[in-house]
Amino acid sequence: MAEKDPLNTWQALEAVRRLSPVVHNITNYVVMNTTANALLAIGASPVMAHAEEEVADMVGIASALVINVGTLSRDWVKAMFKAAEAARERGIPVVLDPVGAGATPYRTGTVRDLVSAVRPAIIRGNASEIMAVCGDQARTRGVDSADASQDALAAAMTIHGTWGSTVCISGETDYIVGGRTLYQVRNGHPMMPRVTGLGCTATALCGAFAAVTRDRALAAAQAMVVMGIAGEMAAEGAEGPGSLQVRFLDALYRLGAEDIDRRIRLGA
Amino acid sequence: MAEKDPLNTWQALEAVRRLSPVVHNITNYVVMNTTANALLAIGASPVMAHAEEEVADMVGIASALVINVGTLSRDWVKAMFKAAEAARERGIPVVLDPVGAGATPYRTGTVRDLVSAVRPAIIRGNASEIMAVCGDQARTRGVDSADASQDALAAAMTIHGTWGSTVCISGETDYIVGGRTLYQVRNGHPMMPRVTGLGCTATALCGAFAAVTRDRALAAAQAMVVMGIAGEMAAEGAEGPGSLQVRFLDALYRLGAEDIDRRIRLGA
Amino acid sequence: MAEKDPLNTWQALEAVRRLSPVVHNITNYVVMNTTANALLAIGASPVMAHAEEEVADMVGIASALVINVGTLSRDWVKAMFKAAEAARERGIPVVLDPVGAGATPYRTGTVRDLVSAVRPAIIRGNASEIMAVCGDQARTRGVDSADASQDALAAAMTIHGTWGSTVCISGETDYIVGGRTLYQVRNGHPMMPRVTGLGCTATALCGAFAAVTRDRALAAAQAMVVMGIAGEMAAEGAEGPGSLQVRFLDALYRLGAEDIDRRIRLGA
Repeated sequence: MAEKDPLNTWQALEAVRRLSPVVHNITNYVVMNTTANALLAIGASPVMAHAEEEVADMVGIASALVINVGTLSRDWVKAMFKAAEAARERGIPVVLDPVGAGATPYRTGTVRDLVSAVRPAIIRGNASEIMAVCGDQARTRGVDSADASQDALAAAMTIHGTWGSTVCISGETDYIVGGRTLYQVRNGHPMMPRVTGLGCTATALCGAFAAVTRDRALAAAQAMVVMGIAGEMAAEGAEGPGSLQVRFLDALYRLGAEDIDRRIRLGA
Repeated sequence: MAEKDPLNTWQALEAVRRLSPVVHNITNYVVMNTTANALLAIGASPVMAHAEEEVADMVGIASALVINVGTLSRDWVKAMFKAAEAARERGIPVVLDPVGAGATPYRTGTVRDLVSAVRPAIIRGNASEIMAVCGDQARTRGVDSADASQDALAAAMTIHGTWGSTVCISGETDYIVGGRTLYQVRNGHPMMPRVTGLGCTATALCGAFAAVTRDRALAAAQAMVVMGIAGEMAAEGAEGPGSLQVRFLDALYRLGAEDIDRRIRLGA
Repeated sequence: MAEKDPLNTWQALEAVRRLSPVVHNITNYVVMNTTANALLAIGASPVMAHAEEEVADMVGIASALVINVGTLSRDWVKAMFKAAEAARERGIPVVLDPVGAGATPYRTGTVRDLVSAVRPAIIRGNASEIMAVCGDQARTRGVDSADASQDALAAAMTIHGTWGSTVCISGETDYIVGGRTLYQVRNGHPMMPRVTGLGCTATALCGAFAAVTRDRALAAAQAMVVMGIAGEMAAEGAEGPGSLQVRFLDALYRLGAEDIDRRIRLGA
């Protein structure tokens, strides 16, 4: 099964389901429920905790840490740094979602501080966010991207060169910069951006796959394949974004080797 | 199309979909996901941000600001005032949802401070909340209204007379006080109050419509028509509040001119 | 109807629907929406409020207080104590969900402080959490239990003996310790743990039933029967955890006496 997939996505998905890695999320209020459900649906074990008093201990039982700045504030940012430090000490991967970077100076500054201090294993964002992380002029529009994903390739390479992070630019085509090969994932459905938190969910899934796949770029590519294929399966028959969201969780739960074989679209 | 609608709801909905206005929400934890999804489903571009460090900047890229006190606390209230001040300077509409006003002195006091300082373009609440804003004896029962919407008409007129705000009282009939005409919207479905956050969603939609419709009372009426019709479409075939919530987002996404023409119920 | 049910679950459910008790929740960010919707679906009236300035007043209009430490932090914990004190003065039941107790010292310590100070009417958790409350070596894995529910029976009896709380251990079989009889509820479906917040929802329903049923152990048993049966009804025909979550709310809303009669599974 899944013989056509050079990423071995199916094997990685089976590993997530078998090992049920604990993924510690310090994320935003809007998507907490959504990403916890997505992680559960895929077979991982999500934990949400943000108190400075406990984040280091919680990292201690986790296999990956996901930091998402969507509704950031001072205390939460402190906890993000503390948790990331604990993750570095334990050697577990940190995945960063720079939600809305470029939208306000506070947000952009916080994200850039996090990147340079934490040097995340993976940074996943849309093109505008990745460009803002790099310091480029991006056209962030609120938290939605006004740029196409390929526009951020140069920024992604600069980020990778400077901090070593694998960078995943999501969009119609997802680009993953940082491995030996530039991964390109073309799965997904145009209705997906009409559901809040699916970008944040992609980041959380990067955490789950980074917990079982040592190669970070490969882990991010696997996560994007699973996101995209589940999104396609969900969109077929969905009557709008409400049912897409429900069916997306069902698809994550049911996703089989044949679905990957039949649907995966990589490359140029 | 939609020839029978004196509110031009369809034209306003098309404008929201075409312009995708950024709506900045400082809202409560319970409904953040719901209202973000409703704004996306209708074609708007939601942003959630509450840090004092960035709210003014975020208002700077928004076309409307929605303030909702559902799970208020000191720091959030500070951010609400700061954001509202930035909105005043930029001349974008502020929409206030006085969730649970009347339930506790802290809540009632905060809401009344906000109203007098911010003079919101639109205040949307249930009858008990509107009466509490006005200082009337209301029968708030938790966050649910114990009063019928028409009972708050006098309070709404007082609020409008004192602070200039358009007041939208939602209930079986929604009343919008503040324009040349008293708008009355009779759409909706009795199962809607069994889904949390649909009142808050109505307020968020007021923000989206106020971003494209200059006349505030008209904007609020358009929002309530869209809420009510989407709720009716969702309730038909729903097996309970769970499926109603999902189908409601689908309905917002699919809502067409014919749906408005066929279903709109205004007036006496 | 429901003649075979020694717990009189149907009568209690009817009382919830008729009286619509206000249930004040100080709960975690992940599940706020889910538990509010579940309480509404069952006919109760949920309120979420956590500001120190208002929790005591909000308790003043509530018939039960539910405290859930899922995403605890210092300010929220202060509010929990304050609200619990007000609940004690008013004589309304406090229900505690020790989410993730055992996962970090801060969490375990906070929960144990709450239990000894508040002496909750009902504590509902999974086996690992209940063992951690008792001070036993538990095998908490993040917020998921690594222990079977019967393993926590001794811990539950110790807790009941020490603080007087009724203890509900949920799992494949739910045990309720504290009444004259040890209640055992065998309803539920294996897919339920793949939806986030259903444990927290069980706790919230304990609050709703404790508001109408004086006997605390009986109230907890009734809540678990309703949870389990609604979960079974939801799982039949669900294509995954996404649709299970939606159908679960529908099932809570539609649950009838015949469903209880036909499905209830109690005892040894």
